[in-house]
Amino acid sequence: MSRIVECVPNFSEGRDQGIIDKIAAPFSAQEGVKLLDVQTDSDHNRMVVTAMGTPQSIKKAVIEAMGRAVAHIDMTRHQGQHPRMGAVDVVPFIPIQDLTMADAVALSREVAAEAATRFNLPIFLYERSATAAHRANLAAIRKGQFEGMAEKLKNPLWQPDYGPARVHPTAGVTAVGARAPLVAFNVNLGTDQAHIADAIAKKVRHIGGGLRYCKAMGVTLKGRDLVQVSMNMTDFSQTALYQALELIRMEAKRYGVAVVGSEVVGLVPMQALMDCAAYYMGLEDFSIKQVLESHLI
Amino acid sequence: MSRIVECVPNFSEGRDQGIIDKIAAPFSAQEGVKLLDVQTDSDHNRMVVTAMGTPQSIKKAVIEAMGRAVAHIDMTRHQGQHPRMGAVDVVPFIPIQDLTMADAVALSREVAAEAATRFNLPIFLYERSATAAHRANLAAIRKGQFEGMAEKLKNPLWQPDYGPARVHPTAGVTAVGARAPLVAFNVNLGTDQAHIADAIAKKVRHIGGGLRYCKAMGVTLKGRDLVQVSMNMTDFSQTALYQALELIRMEAKRYGVAVVGSEVVGLVPMQALMDCAAYYMGLEDFSIKQVLESHLI
Repeated sequence: MSRIVECVPNFSEGRDQGIIDKIAAPFSAQEGVKLLDVQTDSDHNRMVVTAMGTPQSIKKAVIEAMGRAVAHIDMTRHQGQHPRMGAVDVVPFIPIQDLTMADAVALSREVAAEAATRFNLPIFLYERSATAAHRANLAAIRKGQFEGMAEKLKNPLWQPDYGPARVHPTAGVTAVGARAPLVAFNVNLGTDQAHIADAIAKKVRHIGGGLRYCKAMGVTLKGRDLVQVSMNMTDFSQTALYQALELIRMEAKRYGVAVVGSEVVGLVPMQALMDCAAYYMGLEDFSIKQVLESHLI
Repeated sequence: MSRIVECVPNFSEGRDQGIIDKIAAPFSAQEGVKLLDVQTDSDHNRMVVTAMGTPQSIKKAVIEAMGRAVAHIDMTRHQGQHPRMGAVDVVPFIPIQDLTMADAVALSREVAAEAATRFNLPIFLYERSATAAHRANLAAIRKGQFEGMAEKLKNPLWQPDYGPARVHPTAGVTAVGARAPLVAFNVNLGTDQAHIADAIAKKVRHIGGGLRYCKAMGVTLKGRDLVQVSMNMTDFSQTALYQALELIRMEAKRYGVAVVGSEVVGLVPMQALMDCAAYYMGLEDFSIKQVLESHLI
């Protein structure tokens, strides 16, 4: 088994295919890196790259891509619906295999230090890599957006962790950090009553007194006469998917409503579902190394 | 995702480390093949190689290894406790990823045809590759062992599928075929009464009227005051692990006994556990391609 980290950098270009291709190219060219997805949105004027690989290969590819974004994106002329503060807006690292969160934090610091020096870019460490509590949340760092950063960086509370203490004239400001993998997990209820999904979502999510790494809201599934508790599980290694599912089942009983199904949207780390299999089967001493395919990665 | 096949050839040499290494070497040398295990047993005088890789890479490696076994093993002088009929006793191919059983059968035929010609070896197709019902079971083919094969091959019912219709003088006879992956799955019961595990094993296994791809027996777990239903799941894509587990739970209720845990022994294909997660979570439209790691294989 290799050490594998995921990297999902967001760049502020979603319209010019030539520039999009230039920024994505280092991920497909780099040995040891697998480029999984390049998502672009012209309304947001933003691109999101999803890549996985060994830490040092990912580091090389993302620094190269950051350099290209700094060279080709001019934030003074950038317009788009999504909040943004820099050409390289945010670079999250997610530990996937044989890598601790501390390893991912260390990698994020290496990348931030090197990119800040090479591209003369002010960089904030965020999420698990943050150096102060008020800088952990990306939205807090990004508040004011590109246009407000010159003023913001005068505040001693908002000195960048790496690079100059002033905005890059065309590339703005960047956030780099480690975070846990995010799993989009939805649970369907056998009712069409939206208020029931809303009420259950409120009980199960962190801000309502529920599970720590669970964000949730009620959603109506058109065409199916069902409602859904739609969740973002922000750290499945701490808050397991089965915990959210069983808590929802418990709350649903209050309304005489059954859980009729669930779904995982998009990609999910193998461990998140293995934890569920192990829980429901009562598996003892199970290790991911027993999965045949883990030896092929 | 690459197409991945597993190959678990058994060779009749478990004592001479020089020959063991020679036979295993093609699997570690071949690009596109991962050698997972070489198990040897000097009482059985037998070695079992476990390797995975792309079909064509596995084909090259196994044919090379078969040639070496034919060259270095003399069955006229072979002694061991395990039944055997040839230097290359049996070569099973197991589809793991992006490969159907029909693909694995086709691969087994290619390997059998080429090895039979190159090494002048009589080869029977067995299991899913068998060309007649009475030849599907390996034990039926091997009956009479090396010493009885000369006589057996005179019978029109026992003409090899490939190669000469006579025993190779030093390498005997070989069986090649495709089969489903085998999962060793045990369920622990909260009692020390061996007869309860025995009775439940008999109800859940195929020969007792139970699940088609399930072999089971009762086992006492020394030092834990527990008994266990110990199973071989011979095709989890047809008989799922959760079916066996829930049937055991049902039967155990009859005795007022609880299921207190379960275990998977050794390697297990990811799909076998994903099927269980999907069942217990009620996952809709889940595909193994949603597993992040599947894109790295």
